[in-house]
Amino acid sequence: MPLGARCDLRDAACCGCEFARFADEPTSRCVARATASGFDFVVVDARDARRGSRFDARCDVAVMERMVVMRASAFATEALKRIANANANERTSDVGERGMVEDIAWARHAGAHATCVDVSRGDGRYNARLAAVVARELEANAHVKIWARVKVGGVRDDDAYVAWRAFAKACANADVRAAIEIGRDGVSEEGWRRWRGERVVAFVLRVDAFRTNAKGYPVLPRATQALAKEMFRLGAQVILSDRDDDGDELACVAPWDVDSDVKENEDGEGNRTRLYWEYLAYLFRGVEASSEQALAEAPYRDYLQIPLQPLMDNLENVTYETFEKDASKYNQYEEAVRMALVDGARQGDEAAVVMVVGAGRGPLVNAALRAAKSAHRDITVYAIEKNPHAVVTLQHLAQSDEWRGRVRVCPGDMRACDVGDVKADIIVSELLGSFGDNELSPECLDGAMSMLKDGGVSIPSEYESFIAPITAAKLHASAAAYKDLEHMETPYVVRFHRVHEIAEPKSAWKFSHPRKQQPSNERQVDLEFETTQPVTVHGFAGYFDALLYAGNSGTVRCSIHPHNHTMGPTGEPMFSWFPLYFPIREPVLAVAGDRVTLHLWRRVDAHKMWYEWLVSSPVQGPLHNINGRSYRIGL
Amino acid sequence: MPLGARCDLRDAACCGCEFARFADEPTSRCVARATASGFDFVVVDARDARRGSRFDARCDVAVMERMVVMRASAFATEALKRIANANANERTSDVGERGMVEDIAWARHAGAHATCVDVSRGDGRYNARLAAVVARELEANAHVKIWARVKVGGVRDDDAYVAWRAFAKACANADVRAAIEIGRDGVSEEGWRRWRGERVVAFVLRVDAFRTNAKGYPVLPRATQALAKEMFRLGAQVILSDRDDDGDELACVAPWDVDSDVKENEDGEGNRTRLYWEYLAYLFRGVEASSEQALAEAPYRDYLQIPLQPLMDNLENVTYETFEKDASKYNQYEEAVRMALVDGARQGDEAAVVMVVGAGRGPLVNAALRAAKSAHRDITVYAIEKNPHAVVTLQHLAQSDEWRGRVRVCPGDMRACDVGDVKADIIVSELLGSFGDNELSPECLDGAMSMLKDGGVSIPSEYESFIAPITAAKLHASAAAYKDLEHMETPYVVRFHRVHEIAEPKSAWKFSHPRKQQPSNERQVDLEFETTQPVTVHGFAGYFDALLYAGNSGTVRCSIHPHNHTMGPTGEPMFSWFPLYFPIREPVLAVAGDRVTLHLWRRVDAHKMWYEWLVSSPVQGPLHNINGRSYRIGL
Repeated sequence: MPLGARCDLRDAACCGCEFARFADEPTSRCVARATASGFDFVVVDARDARRGSRFDARCDVAVMERMVVMRASAFATEALKRIANANANERTSDVGERGMVEDIAWARHAGAHATCVDVSRGDGRYNARLAAVVARELEANAHVKIWARVKVGGVRDDDAYVAWRAFAKACANADVRAAIEIGRDGVSEEGWRRWRGERVVAFVLRVDAFRTNAKGYPVLPRATQALAKEMFRLGAQVILSDRDDDGDELACVAPWDVDSDVKENEDGEGNRTRLYWEYLAYLFRGVEASSEQALAEAPYRDYLQIPLQPLMDNLENVTYETFEKDASKYNQYEEAVRMALVDGARQGDEAAVVMVVGAGRGPLVNAALRAAKSAHRDITVYAIEKNPHAVVTLQHLAQSDEWRGRVRVCPGDMRACDVGDVKADIIVSELLGSFGDNELSPECLDGAMSMLKDGGVSIPSEYESFIAPITAAKLHASAAAYKDLEHMETPYVVRFHRVHEIAEPKSAWKFSHPRKQQPSNERQVDLEFETTQPVTVHGFAGYFDALLYAGNSGTVRCSIHPHNHTMGPTGEPMFSWFPLYFPIREPVLAVAGDRVTLHLWRRVDAHKMWYEWLVSSPVQGPLHNINGRSYRIGL
Repeated sequence: MPLGARCDLRDAACCGCEFARFADEPTSRCVARATASGFDFVVVDARDARRGSRFDARCDVAVMERMVVMRASAFATEALKRIANANANERTSDVGERGMVEDIAWARHAGAHATCVDVSRGDGRYNARLAAVVARELEANAHVKIWARVKVGGVRDDDAYVAWRAFAKACANADVRAAIEIGRDGVSEEGWRRWRGERVVAFVLRVDAFRTNAKGYPVLPRATQALAKEMFRLGAQVILSDRDDDGDELACVAPWDVDSDVKENEDGEGNRTRLYWEYLAYLFRGVEASSEQALAEAPYRDYLQIPLQPLMDNLENVTYETFEKDASKYNQYEEAVRMALVDGARQGDEAAVVMVVGAGRGPLVNAALRAAKSAHRDITVYAIEKNPHAVVTLQHLAQSDEWRGRVRVCPGDMRACDVGDVKADIIVSELLGSFGDNELSPECLDGAMSMLKDGGVSIPSEYESFIAPITAAKLHASAAAYKDLEHMETPYVVRFHRVHEIAEPKSAWKFSHPRKQQPSNERQVDLEFETTQPVTVHGFAGYFDALLYAGNSGTVRCSIHPHNHTMGPTGEPMFSWFPLYFPIREPVLAVAGDRVTLHLWRRVDAHKMWYEWLVSSPVQGPLHNINGRSYRIGL
């Protein structure tokens, strides 16, 4: 949705304005003025707007819902100042609170799209009474939208974040959204990155955040530009504001002329607000367009998927189809097989035996055949597959010109498959899940290794699981919405979007194949992650980094580790795996310097594999998924 | 149950022993020796006990379940030492852990009553892996009992408490109980008082906690005596132990002779263990016997009752009967009416009009008549009652000799009752709930005051609500057992037993009658409580303190404030009210010096009154009972 193209508030990336001078005008006129300058909606003061004649019938409910956000400022400006000066135990008057309650009720009555409430006071602390007012409003009116306005940046940046967190917790309601506000102080990148994992609905850009460039035009400092672009990417509404903390008008670096009587769609030189609007539009155009792949993935953004049960269920045709599209992955496999064939040339002139365990519809068979061609080696491929439906496809392909005489199809489970006396030089598998071992690759390959020659090669040869704490309010809310324990103890496959990685991923454990002995596939690890600022932990992100092959010819990896993600030949990232999200039952606020300590177990019994996890600092949490009660993968 | 009277572990206050020398004997022999010395059960090392011949068939399941507690010590002593020395990120071996898992499984197989696990290591910190082992055991085996052994006292006392809390939280299971252990260091009263609110199942008294008195007999220091008595009162099992942290034998101040081959029930001079046992029995006898009233209240201890809905429901006859038994309360009322009559004597010779609003079956009418007699004043009593069933009783009583001609029964709601032109000199009511205003006394009396003369008196004339943070693991677990939000947002009436008051109660608000204007009965307050040591907040205790009357003749109060509880003439405390328990959804661990900040609201609308509450420090919590969604009193 292009900026300013008469979208409404429910769409992404439209641009609104909040001007001090709107206080003197009826709401309908504010809307007309704003749209004339290119803006899509306005933010008006609820108290001003409900003053008698200022709310006129021309501004009907449809316009209110689409184009107007009300700001309930009374409690924040009047009552909070009084409370701030009062003794902690003094009973403060509830006059200011009542005014705010009335403001919010009036905004609801008028049909405003949302109501802004100021969460962070001058000292950055939050107010329990304000939170209570909002919690009650949301409890009583399911359709109401509250935007919690948080002034970020400056020396109180951390306090403002903590205030937002306390406010959201006090409301105990997933539907409170943040409107982050930037002024003269700007905000450091570290300061704003944590907001990527919060539920930010709007980005309020005050005119004092702008600087003037050499030509006298308003421009943003580089750090704020980066933030603005990120907000556009995340689909937040952008609001231009000339109001300071007290609602007074701010001086503009490029003063505008809202008094000139602009007509709708007029683009006159005299209207200086246009300069800001145009700058924002310019920034918006600078946000790189989404690739085709990114667009295809958009519906999966922040959507919780239950991981596959590859052993217990047979994959559907469409699932194979999706996986086979990932050229980057099969290129890596082809290269790994090629290197293994080249490095193994000393084994003589006999055709090398390549077994593809879990062949599916044959993509790895094709990769092996291509590899053999480029390595100038003869190979015989055994395609072992347990899914009888996929075996039909394989047997059909085995009659094709490319496969005939070179590929033998062996129906059956790789852990107990009869291939006669033949042993493989190379066993190739694609059993990895998002977290490496989470789709039972260790158990399956342990079973398949009896078919490998001594000194033979497994592709992959090893894979490591990585994990990192994340801020991901939306993911947590989605899991919590089920209102049961089970969904808070299940790892999900998720295309991360509104997710902030709090610390670098750390290695949890590693599996290697083939293995001499058969040690336990159980694992346990204690990991500590440092934090440098207040930040919320909603759970953990799981990734894998696999070594497909390492030998004289070189090394081939396959990884979704964010700092090492495998890219395809056209520069597209490999897309077969989204990361894993491990939720925790209660989000945890870590303050600067707190360590986040995670204890993670991979457990296995005769029938299943599962994970258990536990956060022991900064706040002790419960053990999750005890004995696999909520989530397990059947063996 | 007298100490040592061959009770079994399921009963309160029996006494067990854990002797180092038991390690060399079969379990059945340990039991025989212990009972011969007067003890009721033994604690034996699971690893020792399962060594081949040491577990013999004679010790059958019934004996195991009734008289044996196993101690799984392996993880604590071996593996934990290794882990303590390991780097935080080093993957520690799971040998010790597996040993512990086997110990616990073996204790379960053998049918032991419970398994002790050591929670606090040498450095007082808890171990996530140990917690995970226990959490899994409890999840998989509903009937298993785990006693988490925590060494209290000494410089690590606070660490041990925090370790227990983390352990209990990690297990996320209400059925983990604590066995607190006292050794040479003893423990301060402040240190042990917090355990009164925890789920303590056993009290392990190590022989090095004893001193020798002038006659060479083992005795406990005064502070430990007080703790031991408290443990007897709370029904904890007492265990005498001569084992140190590593399971080695401790030197005894009065060395015993367990090697002497005592026969069952033999009470020989030679068996010195008897000296300790006798001292414990002496302490037990020193615990004051429960009064008749305390025994009557025993079934209500820590039992959650939903508060009455006095306006919406009519009380049952049995409820009236219970309330009328409380002589101390009616004595206070009688005295208050007497003083009011005496002080009001200047009003002339006319009979004073006393209106009893909410007369029930007439106890306040009787109190007023008794007061008039001792004040030598004539009175006319109007008995106003809305419950038609109680009115039948009142009308019957009005024909009695005592009442005839002096009492007029007026059926109806005091807020809209037609008593003609007559106005009261004194209005008497007993509408107070545990928290003062929680049964709608303010709303009812506001309605009744139109019947009061100018300058007339209301008894009570004012009442104040008090609130304090408490540790009350059992109460919290009982509310949480319903597994719904509603029960975590409801205040309960509870006879406190295993409850620790963290800080002095503070005043929340006060109501006075009669009032000139009719201001709002809504209230809100922000309260801060200081903590001096690590302690857990499971919610808040609510009390009232009422001023029935204050005048020239004196002052009469009626209070359940713990520091000001009204006592009856025989020294029995007034028992009509148990305190109110306000739960919070998640228990909060406050560390030393943390402030516990509570925000509390009394809210009223046209149909109902309700409370909302919110804890904002040390950890931000959610607003409870928003808009009265889970609990309200109908008007």
